[in-house]
Amino acid sequence: MTVYMDKIQLKTNEMDIVDITSEVQASVSKSGINNGMVCVFCPGSTGAITTIEHEPGLMHDLPAALERIAPKGAHYEHEKMWHDGNGHSHVRASIIGPSIVVPVVDGRLQLGTWQQIVFIECDIRSRNRILLSHVFGE
Amino acid sequence: MTVYMDKIQLKTNEMDIVDITSEVQASVSKSGINNGMVCVFCPGSTGAITTIEHEPGLMHDLPAALERIAPKGAHYEHEKMWHDGNGHSHVRASIIGPSIVVPVVDGRLQLGTWQQIVFIECDIRSRNRILLSHVFGE
Amino acid sequence: MTVYMDKIQLKTNEMDIVDITSEVQASVSKSGINNGMVCVFCPGSTGAITTIEHEPGLMHDLPAALERIAPKGAHYEHEKMWHDGNGHSHVRASIIGPSIVVPVVDGRLQLGTWQQIVFIECDIRSRNRILLSHVFGE
Repeated sequence: MTVYMDKIQLKTNEMDIVDITSEVQASVSKSGINNGMVCVFCPGSTGAITTIEHEPGLMHDLPAALERIAPKGAHYEHEKMWHDGNGHSHVRASIIGPSIVVPVVDGRLQLGTWQQIVFIECDIRSRNRILLSHVFGE
Repeated sequence: MTVYMDKIQLKTNEMDIVDITSEVQASVSKSGINNGMVCVFCPGSTGAITTIEHEPGLMHDLPAALERIAPKGAHYEHEKMWHDGNGHSHVRASIIGPSIVVPVVDGRLQLGTWQQIVFIECDIRSRNRILLSHVFGE
Repeated sequence: MTVYMDKIQLKTNEMDIVDITSEVQASVSKSGINNGMVCVFCPGSTGAITTIEHEPGLMHDLPAALERIAPKGAHYEHEKMWHDGNGHSHVRASIIGPSIVVPVVDGRLQLGTWQQIVFIECDIRSRNRILLSHVFGE
């Protein structure tokens, strides 16, 4: 078994939900690994990674749920200390989580037909993100 | 180190929370791997995987919390486009996440005494699910 | 590729959010593994693991969001059966999840500057926790 290490670069805006499936599949293809898994991770505490059906409706519906969990206009102690306006961003990212693992079989990500890997920009300003995409297997 | 790839088949109904611990342990046992980890993944955007104490009370309490995060009767843009009534299912599955990793030592899943691996059927109709259970280690 | 298995011991109180980054980095350093990933897991159904900026403000803000998702004073069927007062603890831990994977490059965890790995004690009493920290790579 071996590990192949790759990076994925993104330019994001507030509450972007970016489909990174083709970039992750590209990491898997470049790796030459047929069977195993890929771990995708966001270095940064205001970005999150999960899967979703990447269609326009859910791009509104997932943020609406995050607004229930951590409303943008609520009181945050983080704000009192840092005055950067992104207390809700940190809370949302921590609850969804910064990483995902997806199995690989015959060199292909084993996603469902309507399932994409997405990066969620929880921060309130435009960011340049570099995600890590590590493929494990043989 | 090696990887062993297995599948777990389930028949589910709406909001079923299925204890799949024995099936995942069976994958580990069949693999012959003693030390490492197992990655369990749901291919599909309306199913989720986590751990919980699988007792009847929490089978009500976890869905109640998911109803707070993404109420079944709320407005979903997903519904306006697809009319399949499962906007809340997608949102709930994305927040919990489609995968889990669990360490393996001496051929055994390292779960707590009251901790089971569960598949959560967030969709609104009966489904046949095939989960992937990949064991990594030596 | 190889796997190195380590444990992290913690003494916690209710809703402690403990920065375990240095302990996980110690596992990586002891492993001698340069490139790969680490999987950190909580055996137990009332503890959770994620990343966050570990500063005092967010130590109030994340629990406030968990209180929205699973209020401590709400009705729990778990309570009717077990009378241990921690129904909300189980629900919170299941939604955040018991594990995380973090990539390792050149022997270092690939976290963001303001991003720490944390254990969240969702239970209502003091606990002695033993987390598992498994490093995979070469």
